[in-house]
Amino acid sequence: MERIVECVPNFSEGRDEKVVRSLVEAVEAVEGALVLGTHVDADHHRSVVTFVAPPEQAVEAAVRVTRRAAELIDLRAHAGEHPRLGACDVLPFVPLKGVGIGDCVQLAHEAGRRIWEELGIPVYFYESAALRPERRNLADVRRGGFELLREQIGTDPARAPDVGEPRVHPTAGATVVGVRPLLIAYNVTLKTADLALARRIARAVRERDGGLIHLKALGFELKTRGVVQVSMNLTSYERTNLHHAFEAVSREAERLGVEVLGSEVVGLVPQAALDRAAARFLRLENYSPDLVLENRIAAAVERKRKKS
Amino acid sequence: MERIVECVPNFSEGRDEKVVRSLVEAVEAVEGALVLGTHVDADHHRSVVTFVAPPEQAVEAAVRVTRRAAELIDLRAHAGEHPRLGACDVLPFVPLKGVGIGDCVQLAHEAGRRIWEELGIPVYFYESAALRPERRNLADVRRGGFELLREQIGTDPARAPDVGEPRVHPTAGATVVGVRPLLIAYNVTLKTADLALARRIARAVRERDGGLIHLKALGFELKTRGVVQVSMNLTSYERTNLHHAFEAVSREAERLGVEVLGSEVVGLVPQAALDRAAARFLRLENYSPDLVLENRIAAAVERKRKKS
Repeated sequence: MERIVECVPNFSEGRDEKVVRSLVEAVEAVEGALVLGTHVDADHHRSVVTFVAPPEQAVEAAVRVTRRAAELIDLRAHAGEHPRLGACDVLPFVPLKGVGIGDCVQLAHEAGRRIWEELGIPVYFYESAALRPERRNLADVRRGGFELLREQIGTDPARAPDVGEPRVHPTAGATVVGVRPLLIAYNVTLKTADLALARRIARAVRERDGGLIHLKALGFELKTRGVVQVSMNLTSYERTNLHHAFEAVSREAERLGVEVLGSEVVGLVPQAALDRAAARFLRLENYSPDLVLENRIAAAVERKRKKS
Repeated sequence: MERIVECVPNFSEGRDEKVVRSLVEAVEAVEGALVLGTHVDADHHRSVVTFVAPPEQAVEAAVRVTRRAAELIDLRAHAGEHPRLGACDVLPFVPLKGVGIGDCVQLAHEAGRRIWEELGIPVYFYESAALRPERRNLADVRRGGFELLREQIGTDPARAPDVGEPRVHPTAGATVVGVRPLLIAYNVTLKTADLALARRIARAVRERDGGLIHLKALGFELKTRGVVQVSMNLTSYERTNLHHAFEAVSREAERLGVEVLGSEVVGLVPQAALDRAAARFLRLENYSPDLVLENRIAAAVERKRKKS
């Protein structure tokens, strides 16, 4: 695949595995669309299907999976921990290869139009796809969930959708479609049960409070393990990478007399992020992707294929 | 490619680029054989062509490139820094994927037989392909070079070839064929011009003198830069990896009051070596190859391909 878009739809279903399987099938029925993984959360009654596809197929797969969600999920029967607006609740597009944020914004807008026209579900655009500045933040768009939106959408202009008439779909609600950059979810675990300490370190390292750019961080408890975590999103690993985040947290932890137990990546991590971390720690003066044997083999395969 | 063998023939030609290009063409004429790179050394009057292929094609390409070397290189006209026995001097096979050392030994023996039968060049087997324990070490097989072998081969039984009659090819000499594991050539540069110090650190870290297993190391001068290097071969990176070597050298350097300037990989490095180094430095508790986005995409492509 020369051009790859990732799509990470979130659904308001986390208890019925059959529904999730059907959603996966809807995606994979599209030529070129590939499901990389699913995450199902019964407590939150929510699931996530991660897929990749070339740009146009990503839109097709997004519309089909939203249709399947509307067929199988009745929001009136849904109650879970997580605030949600729709059967397919959030639909972010992520540029992976050969595409940029701008390209994905066009895809998001096209998907949004089709979701309204073909499924009768009103659509809101958020993050980089937002048409109004006050809609950039997902939490603001979703405030009060489906039940509050259903009351307000017909009367409050501030709640009118970006695409579609001002009424929710009776069972599928509304869908929030957006574009965000590839992010890495990365947690560092600390040898303490003191949540305030994790929060303090999170504040010290995150962009919002004067720490590293492109870094979001929160403190969390891992009750089952009796320890705490600095839970981070790296929103631009080319600038702020795993090793930057790790070193910043380690430094703060050391300053506060706490030991680092380890770290974990949640979900997927791009190869380049690991390579650059290795190159940094090893102080490799000559790192480049074509130092890597497998890359060199792939390039040779491609070169020979083009000659013939 | 499901099964991949790497082959790293060394040739006694390092000044005429046209010869090297012709050698590359001889390899790539074989369907499935891919040249990953070449290294040409005018001082040593020597070159290396690195290629990969499925097992049978690796043997075919090895024989063809040895034939091309015999056609183009006249050893009687060759004088260089490096001791050598043949136009194609050394021919190591390296298991990369889906093959083991034993498989490659069979390939090496088959290549050796064909080199004698088709080209009239006597062959010696070394390292894991050796038929005699005293021939495991390449330096012992090559002692005295072409000129000395030419004198001794007919009369000294200790110098009789493993395949072929006891006479050198008049212009192509003899070829030493073997099997070795994938190795990583890795250097750490030190902020000093003191060669004795680099040698001391090399002795401290290498297996031979009680250091890390699967690690060879020597001290070298980089005269042009006015510094020294600990130059290493990692002969089993799954056990002794880049970060082990780096940390061992760094520790010794610190003990001796010398700063580490940086490091470099010479040639190619397998992806897994970098990934594991990153996972080690980041203290990643959940590293596995399918955490990596590109691997997950490749697996999904494969899975979908098999379904259809």
